[in-house]
Amino acid sequence: SADSSSEELRFGSTGDPDQHVAVLPGDFQPNASVFAHNLLPAPGGEELTRGFLQEVVDILLGYISKSSQRSSKVLDFHHPHQLKEGLECFSLDLPDQPETLEQILVDCRDTLKYGVRTGHPRFLNQLSSGLDVVGVAGEWLTSTANTNMFTYEVSPVFVLMEECLLKKMQSILGWSDDVGDGIFCPGGTISNLYSILVARYHFYPEVKTRGMGVLPQLALFTSEQSHYSVKKSAAVLGMGSENVFMVKCDESGKMIPAELESSIVTAKEKALVPFYVNATAGTTVYGAFDPLNAIADICQRYTLWMHVDVSVELFNFKYLFSRACSVTWNPHKMMGVPLQCSAILVKKRGLLQECNDFGAEYLFQTDKNYDVSYDTGDKSIQCGRHVDVFKLWLMWKAKGSEGFGSQVNKCLENAEYLYDQLLVVTGNLSFDHTPEHSNVCFWYIPPSLRGQPPGPDRDARLHQVAPRIKGRMMEKGSVMIGYQPLGDKVNFFRCVFSNPATQQEDIDFLLDEITRLGDI
Amino acid sequence: SADSSSEELRFGSTGDPDQHVAVLPGDFQPNASVFAHNLLPAPGGEELTRGFLQEVVDILLGYISKSSQRSSKVLDFHHPHQLKEGLECFSLDLPDQPETLEQILVDCRDTLKYGVRTGHPRFLNQLSSGLDVVGVAGEWLTSTANTNMFTYEVSPVFVLMEECLLKKMQSILGWSDDVGDGIFCPGGTISNLYSILVARYHFYPEVKTRGMGVLPQLALFTSEQSHYSVKKSAAVLGMGSENVFMVKCDESGKMIPAELESSIVTAKEKALVPFYVNATAGTTVYGAFDPLNAIADICQRYTLWMHVDVSVELFNFKYLFSRACSVTWNPHKMMGVPLQCSAILVKKRGLLQECNDFGAEYLFQTDKNYDVSYDTGDKSIQCGRHVDVFKLWLMWKAKGSEGFGSQVNKCLENAEYLYDQLLVVTGNLSFDHTPEHSNVCFWYIPPSLRGQPPGPDRDARLHQVAPRIKGRMMEKGSVMIGYQPLGDKVNFFRCVFSNPATQQEDIDFLLDEITRLGDI
Repeated sequence: SADSSSEELRFGSTGDPDQHVAVLPGDFQPNASVFAHNLLPAPGGEELTRGFLQEVVDILLGYISKSSQRSSKVLDFHHPHQLKEGLECFSLDLPDQPETLEQILVDCRDTLKYGVRTGHPRFLNQLSSGLDVVGVAGEWLTSTANTNMFTYEVSPVFVLMEECLLKKMQSILGWSDDVGDGIFCPGGTISNLYSILVARYHFYPEVKTRGMGVLPQLALFTSEQSHYSVKKSAAVLGMGSENVFMVKCDESGKMIPAELESSIVTAKEKALVPFYVNATAGTTVYGAFDPLNAIADICQRYTLWMHVDVSVELFNFKYLFSRACSVTWNPHKMMGVPLQCSAILVKKRGLLQECNDFGAEYLFQTDKNYDVSYDTGDKSIQCGRHVDVFKLWLMWKAKGSEGFGSQVNKCLENAEYLYDQLLVVTGNLSFDHTPEHSNVCFWYIPPSLRGQPPGPDRDARLHQVAPRIKGRMMEKGSVMIGYQPLGDKVNFFRCVFSNPATQQEDIDFLLDEITRLGDI
Repeated sequence: SADSSSEELRFGSTGDPDQHVAVLPGDFQPNASVFAHNLLPAPGGEELTRGFLQEVVDILLGYISKSSQRSSKVLDFHHPHQLKEGLECFSLDLPDQPETLEQILVDCRDTLKYGVRTGHPRFLNQLSSGLDVVGVAGEWLTSTANTNMFTYEVSPVFVLMEECLLKKMQSILGWSDDVGDGIFCPGGTISNLYSILVARYHFYPEVKTRGMGVLPQLALFTSEQSHYSVKKSAAVLGMGSENVFMVKCDESGKMIPAELESSIVTAKEKALVPFYVNATAGTTVYGAFDPLNAIADICQRYTLWMHVDVSVELFNFKYLFSRACSVTWNPHKMMGVPLQCSAILVKKRGLLQECNDFGAEYLFQTDKNYDVSYDTGDKSIQCGRHVDVFKLWLMWKAKGSEGFGSQVNKCLENAEYLYDQLLVVTGNLSFDHTPEHSNVCFWYIPPSLRGQPPGPDRDARLHQVAPRIKGRMMEKGSVMIGYQPLGDKVNFFRCVFSNPATQQEDIDFLLDEITRLGDI
């Protein structure tokens, strides 16, 4: 890409000829006199800009390459106070005077050095993991295009890509062509918030102008093992977290339909008005699937809004969601799309717009030179909205629906392999839970606890095992996996598979490492 | 960066040796047999990954370079139906089968080709514009790091950078060291939503669990020229848009304190309970500054929460905000940080956490191996949260506070220059409004309307002038600028300066172009 021109570069926005410095085209030579203000749009800043960005890219390519190597650490752990004190001259402080571009490159390297390699094959800590190369390319392009989703005027291509993606996703949900709407949101929690917001508006459109004061006291229902976003969103929306009924689950983590029905009856007895049920397809900890059809029957009987929070993927579950009024779909989870990428899909067309629009005249002018129905920004609770669609669109082009499907299947195979290994070494690594999808949960029983009878004493000691091992993993930087208690179960590991880099050898390593660190 | 190894690349995740293809290291040769599944983490995918990403970068560098050239179009306009029909083989459709990486590169080029160059010197359409090279580098790194702000565990460096930025911003606001809190949010509207949310919680903490049903009917106050996000957020939060009092402004667009006070009295007479006032520093259209001290006096007298929505910048207004309870600050506007970058700053420490936390045990474990006060994610109404801080942090390092200050001053000089030019050509380009900051508003009076007496007939015709010229600008791709009506004023242009690439010659061009297109 090097330009063959031999023109000199002028540094400094003044264009003072005395400040000329010769730089070989395409070659970035950082030195003490080159600063950000010498980059474009400064006159003559083009070669310097190319050189600087190429240096940044070289750092990033090195990082991507290293993240994929098992010989690299997953992280180089430091405590907050250590990083704040300034390790090896890496200072977080914000200066009044500019740093040189040379120093900026050092800052970039240090930022990556002290971070966590979420694309490392042994990063199993979160459902959003991996480093999809095409997705990364999509984000690089998105940030270079640096525009806003609010109007077709400034985002013609991205607005149409959003429409195209939403339609494709709706068809996968089994919704017919004449229904369906949606929007991409900053994360699954905001998508779930939207579901409650539009459900409220659907039943009580007067809430938009008059507020909750003119409504009855509403009740929401979700399982006790669902994501905390339902409670959080209910609080934000002014409904009160105590009006969210946490419906009991069976042993495998699925909502019990009879319990949902009795919660609805209880709510009514308390003079609350039930209006919304969240069902979960892939709970946070167990990865359990609520019985969607039984829940849909109850929603139909009581005229309730049925939302489904799909925290995993949909390629294996097409058409299970046809009865949902709204669905949260997070491509940044098992589909491996870089963070963030989440969509709320709403069956009733036009509801998002009616619920949220305020028709700001400086932005959504109705006398534009194009079809302003493509100015979709007033559907949103945001004004400016980051372009989250391009990376997903590009990945879909690059993989096809089939590619996403086989990527997900690989994760499910990994989950099955881990579970099989756990059965082999039963006694030391154990749990009474068969995984339904990609989450595998288990305890590690250290030698000192083996053979000890179950009871409060053993539980209290077992509760400390996972945090201790996790702490050692992080300090060593060898692998990362989550843990938590749940209900009456003390701390246990939760392994989630969504990282396409993870192979069986990493699972073997994980189990060996847990044993090594747990036996110290 | 080319690796000297001569190892062959294996394509295909199966590792089938019959699929081997020789590729020169560092050299990407796209062909019909190279697909996304050949990239990392596929075995041997490293050189292909480097080659592919380098091709993407070359496309982006070309785009950045072209965006900075005045000879390039600002956009290559097409109507939605044209783009949907598939221009020159650019198809938005999502396939079941993968496309080749060669085609993915074509898709990237086409996406940029049909988009809008928001970094072009003549893109004056939005307050978020320009293409800051260091900011872009920051976003490229952020997306490569691909992590989540919710815990220190997965974002040690970014969490500390957020803390560091918030502290710096609070000191610029004139807040003392022992107060101040905040969080970065997906856009200014969400930041404004936070301000109402925490204000409500501050006065009525029971709202979190019990909802709006146990609260009195609340009233909010904002100026009639403030951003629509206050009304929108009040609706989302269940307060009702009609309980937002739109306080009258003076001729220059500033809220009239006496009108605020009489609105408060009116609300009380209607048995509403006033609790929140939004003051604006830089209104959307005029860029006007509400009288902050007079508003603070009223808020103090009536014990109301005072929020300030700073839609412009703070470097010229340090310490004006010391009396605010909360402040929205959008570095993605005049500071030129790539979209999105917005912060809500809250004076009362701990309020964000108390208002929003639900302590999810799978994420915010209290028995971790580090100081868990750095797991700041439960302050947020989101769960997963995109890293918006790094680009700002890196730009601050690269420019220093002084660099941001001079960048803003350049924009103000441009505004002054445009206003001076308007005065010179008065009669044809005119407005009775002196700009207070970087927004310059004006009508273009076409020859056919010159000399016509003011009145409904002239207004009706003048109302059509700006949209018509804007449409022609877009079709020609020469320049972009916004327009809108306001109050009793028919459509007028609003020129906002935040793009550091814009020079006086672009302003001259804008005025000439308006004249050219307006006289057709």
